[in-house]
Amino acid sequence: MNWGRELKYSLVLFGLCLSAASAAQTDPLSSWNDGSVKQAIIEFVQTTTRPGSPQFIAPAERIVVFDNDGTLWAEQPIYFQLFFAMDRVKALAAQHPEWESQEPFASLLKGNLNAALAGGESAIAKIMMASHAGMTTEQFERIVKDWLTTAKHPRFKRPYTDLVYQPMLELLGYFRSNGFKTFIVSGGGIEFMRPWTQAVYGIPPEQVIGSSIKTKFEVHEGKPVLVRLPEVNFVDDKAGKPVGINSHIGRRPAAAFGNSDGDRQMLEWTQAGDGPRLMVLVHHDDATREWAYGAESKIGTFSDSLASAAKKQGWSVVSIKDDWKHVFAFEK
Amino acid sequence: MNWGRELKYSLVLFGLCLSAASAAQTDPLSSWNDGSVKQAIIEFVQTTTRPGSPQFIAPAERIVVFDNDGTLWAEQPIYFQLFFAMDRVKALAAQHPEWESQEPFASLLKGNLNAALAGGESAIAKIMMASHAGMTTEQFERIVKDWLTTAKHPRFKRPYTDLVYQPMLELLGYFRSNGFKTFIVSGGGIEFMRPWTQAVYGIPPEQVIGSSIKTKFEVHEGKPVLVRLPEVNFVDDKAGKPVGINSHIGRRPAAAFGNSDGDRQMLEWTQAGDGPRLMVLVHHDDATREWAYGAESKIGTFSDSLASAAKKQGWSVVSIKDDWKHVFAFEK
Repeated sequence: MNWGRELKYSLVLFGLCLSAASAAQTDPLSSWNDGSVKQAIIEFVQTTTRPGSPQFIAPAERIVVFDNDGTLWAEQPIYFQLFFAMDRVKALAAQHPEWESQEPFASLLKGNLNAALAGGESAIAKIMMASHAGMTTEQFERIVKDWLTTAKHPRFKRPYTDLVYQPMLELLGYFRSNGFKTFIVSGGGIEFMRPWTQAVYGIPPEQVIGSSIKTKFEVHEGKPVLVRLPEVNFVDDKAGKPVGINSHIGRRPAAAFGNSDGDRQMLEWTQAGDGPRLMVLVHHDDATREWAYGAESKIGTFSDSLASAAKKQGWSVVSIKDDWKHVFAFEK
Repeated sequence: MNWGRELKYSLVLFGLCLSAASAAQTDPLSSWNDGSVKQAIIEFVQTTTRPGSPQFIAPAERIVVFDNDGTLWAEQPIYFQLFFAMDRVKALAAQHPEWESQEPFASLLKGNLNAALAGGESAIAKIMMASHAGMTTEQFERIVKDWLTTAKHPRFKRPYTDLVYQPMLELLGYFRSNGFKTFIVSGGGIEFMRPWTQAVYGIPPEQVIGSSIKTKFEVHEGKPVLVRLPEVNFVDDKAGKPVGINSHIGRRPAAAFGNSDGDRQMLEWTQAGDGPRLMVLVHHDDATREWAYGAESKIGTFSDSLASAAKKQGWSVVSIKDDWKHVFAFEK
């Protein structure tokens, strides 16, 4: 046996492995296929963070906002928060015998989702208030956390938090490693997201903006609590998104990511600032790995008018089918 | 001449200067006199940040909140924002001939402040809406910045931002250098504070919570703007402070600083959390260097009930007279 040769061979192999690892490390967006969107993102980050660049953005102004449903995680066949609300209604049904004859609860408890949601916005509002109000903020946080550990998505049979988009996780990390502060700006409930955004996205609660119901400070048996009231406080959707951004962040984002008509004003507001801006829409066109939907969809509507606006205003549009090598981490 | 001796002498002097500078550096709270409050603050920071300490607070949970008026800067003879509002009314009077016969504007324009404010909350609300609404958020920011460069406090004849408390500036820096995230939680206007908190306190806009009026997304001549409406959105005072903290931060502070009845619920909410907590009230008892006021004052009321609560619940109370070596930087 030639130990010397053996050793040399091992070292070469080891070296090859190191190079491979190092090559993988050089692409922080490895789940993105090369293409115009990936290129636009990298170019934006590089030109805005290189000292001396005419496009340089000061670290404090590096604010990037992300819609959540359909942008960071999936949203089909219905917003995941609605699955949560329905599970809550079922769990609370024993305390509400009147629901057996009241819509939308009656249909929902019979398992007839379509009939339950036939009442539209008003039916959804009733389900939301019945399931999201009437407890303290701490109790609600616990309920959300518990639900996430047990609930499974009907198609993928996995926890909902498995349905976050791997390319977007990489993007969040890429922005942060370049000094950007990442915020969520979602139509979803602010207190539905905050219990898990740090663990799942690396985004702390103070960087999560969403819709909310009113809360009230009370003292229960000597202990101060915040009670969640069945009353809408703020709807962080459409024209509400720039309002929410202004209220919570107080400065205009440098970049914004969305996926539907609900994000249009957020992208417009972002673009209207001086200097370099990046606006990106995720388009769901991959029925095999995820879902394909657009103008006709009630959830995550991507209207023709939004598509024209994107074209006219130079926004990048992600094709999940073409731009994403992987959609979910569990695919790999 | 003995150059060698001269040089030696210079080196010794230089050394002495270095030691003096270094001694000064060892006390990050040099404008605080030694005493129980300073000691409580230092002990809290040391025990919550020392790795392995049973009181250790994880960096992400190191949230400290500060009231603004009367806690970080002065608030007499009236809240400084009210001076701003009055100056705005004067500046806008030419466009509002009707104000000559309408209260509280008529009295205010005649320079009769007491008569103008005789209408109480409702008069103040009218002045606030007339002066704070009807422009875009960007225009309002510019107006606030311009005002701060020209307006002078009536007693000190200095810009209002000179009336920030030097010991509190040191405290903000001390907390931040120990990994705490500093937030303002003020009854004052959120958009009145944000244009200057970074420069004056080192607190970025996204860490400023305050009262607000509603804003509306509109497109003016093709440009998206947020218009400020004459309608109250949120009052960040008293029981509103825990609500504002929950809405903006989404976690409970580890420490809270206030100075009046308006801060009581914020301190109670802070204290109700698990683990180590620090609650501090600033008491204004120095008429010579600042002001002396308490239970009887309309601005910054420090009621007997608040004093009892502080005693009973173990909150620290700063005596400006005894605890602060300097009140304002310009004194030194």
